[in-house]
Amino acid sequence: MTDVAAIRAAARRLRGIRATPLLAATGLDRLAGRRVLVKAECLQVTGSFKARGAWAAISALSDAQRRQGVLAYSSGNHAQGVAWAAAAHGAPAVIVMPSDAPAVKIEGTEAYGAEVVLYDRGHEDRDALGAGLAAERGLTLVPPFDDPEVIAGQGTVGLELAEQVRGAGVGRADVLVPCGGGGLSAGIALALEAEAPELRVRPAEPAGFDDMARSLAGGERLTNPAAIGSICDAILTPRPGALTFPVLQRLAGPGLAVSDDEALAAVEAAFRHLHVVVEPGGAVALAAALFRGEAIAGDAVVCVASGGNVATETFVRAISGRTP
Amino acid sequence: MTDVAAIRAAARRLRGIRATPLLAATGLDRLAGRRVLVKAECLQVTGSFKARGAWAAISALSDAQRRQGVLAYSSGNHAQGVAWAAAAHGAPAVIVMPSDAPAVKIEGTEAYGAEVVLYDRGHEDRDALGAGLAAERGLTLVPPFDDPEVIAGQGTVGLELAEQVRGAGVGRADVLVPCGGGGLSAGIALALEAEAPELRVRPAEPAGFDDMARSLAGGERLTNPAAIGSICDAILTPRPGALTFPVLQRLAGPGLAVSDDEALAAVEAAFRHLHVVVEPGGAVALAAALFRGEAIAGDAVVCVASGGNVATETFVRAISGRTP
Repeated sequence: MTDVAAIRAAARRLRGIRATPLLAATGLDRLAGRRVLVKAECLQVTGSFKARGAWAAISALSDAQRRQGVLAYSSGNHAQGVAWAAAAHGAPAVIVMPSDAPAVKIEGTEAYGAEVVLYDRGHEDRDALGAGLAAERGLTLVPPFDDPEVIAGQGTVGLELAEQVRGAGVGRADVLVPCGGGGLSAGIALALEAEAPELRVRPAEPAGFDDMARSLAGGERLTNPAAIGSICDAILTPRPGALTFPVLQRLAGPGLAVSDDEALAAVEAAFRHLHVVVEPGGAVALAAALFRGEAIAGDAVVCVASGGNVATETFVRAISGRTP
Repeated sequence: MTDVAAIRAAARRLRGIRATPLLAATGLDRLAGRRVLVKAECLQVTGSFKARGAWAAISALSDAQRRQGVLAYSSGNHAQGVAWAAAAHGAPAVIVMPSDAPAVKIEGTEAYGAEVVLYDRGHEDRDALGAGLAAERGLTLVPPFDDPEVIAGQGTVGLELAEQVRGAGVGRADVLVPCGGGGLSAGIALALEAEAPELRVRPAEPAGFDDMARSLAGGERLTNPAAIGSICDAILTPRPGALTFPVLQRLAGPGLAVSDDEALAAVEAAFRHLHVVVEPGGAVALAAALFRGEAIAGDAVVCVASGGNVATETFVRAISGRTP
């Protein structure tokens, strides 16, 4: 399993990954009623933290595996992360994406040189399609979250946070993390356990898709009632990962859930006060800081803004309140 | 006059100023036809580089001067920078702003605790108003650009750039800088002269307001034909500064001018590829990299994105092509 040694090893292997800034603004503190620090992974290469895990996983493969190529299933950010990291390693990449994924994410993936294979969510079996491609071409799967190396890569966010939060003069605080399958949350939690145990991860999710929060409360991995139906497309995962859940059970605080409107309001707040572009799924942690303050203790709160690959019409809706 | 020693001294005095990241994206390189590196001063506290110069100037005052307070004239970013730096020093701040300044900038200034005095651009004499306030209350003026300490503060961007550009593996390159009165351009040019002489500053301006470009070409300080009429409100200064011009005459390459539509397209490109919010005036350097490529030499170009305090309707227009 992933431990802090694996995270440190992943950090040493990373190339071309940005140490993203920890941002803050007086206006945001005022909105939240406490000090807010935002780890801007929307400024990461490929526009999300997923580049870290993809790099960690692909750099851990054998040369022979890399020559054959890699495969990923993803509606967006993981796709771009894998496409970018594969290209940088000279490895072919095939990305299986739903045909209704945001165009900006499909185009972004192709722009990194990956082969995109689209499938119909309603009528095609994604796993069978991918397994067929993998067998035919000898591709290695890079899982989106439930993989020790992917978790280690995402955990490098936690190594940076430990140092940056201390540098900002903050002691004990909650670290709110947008949560789909839990790879980012688990990686950060493992890094903080070793490097800054005074910081506690709390997963943030869209209301109705808060499988991790309910699973943590219930003590077992529970599934969301629906598969789609939130604007937070980046983090709609059916249930917690088999590897990520035990980590978060041991290390994380209670989960937080926010509405789509609250996520959009957080996108607007990040635009206005921090001058960064965050996608709705990447803004749920900031939304929790702004709208679930009563469920958070302490003078300061840390939020991860996990991605910024947002469709123009969604961003316009967030900042102007109107559908263009 | 300002020299690199003054810039280094200012850097040592700065508190709460962010070392902003140098961003890049494959998609942006493709648009520009060469490698593009963007120094994201839109992520600076108060949303622009102006916080640096304001801090440098206010921290250089005597305790007695700070107790009496400071005065600034500004339509926006300098106002917020001075308001923020004054508040952090416990100094009262009075900011004289035109009544037609963007509401987001007036509100931002007030939010930092400054007293905002509005005047009518058409019918009131700003300088007489400010001089009256200064005499009455014993306030010290913090000039927007033509001041040795302000130039030294802005020059700290250049110290960071020298290190970051070298770290990115770039040698000889042009550094395009949004230019109003020339404080940022001159400060960066002085820092690079000492720290990275292979990097050359080139001022970027809105077409029709390219007083610095024309002055550099003509060998004397020339005035713009009009005072208003560009969306790039942050950098509409009538003519180069008396202190900044000789510095740029000695160190800068030819200026570049872009249209409002090109500035808006650069705002969109920064939104899409870098996930940062840049205001039109702050995007003219990136616009020059995207649309004046034939006037730039080399495999790479560095652009400063100088500010991000943009009205929602302007940003919506930039990214969606529509007025909301």
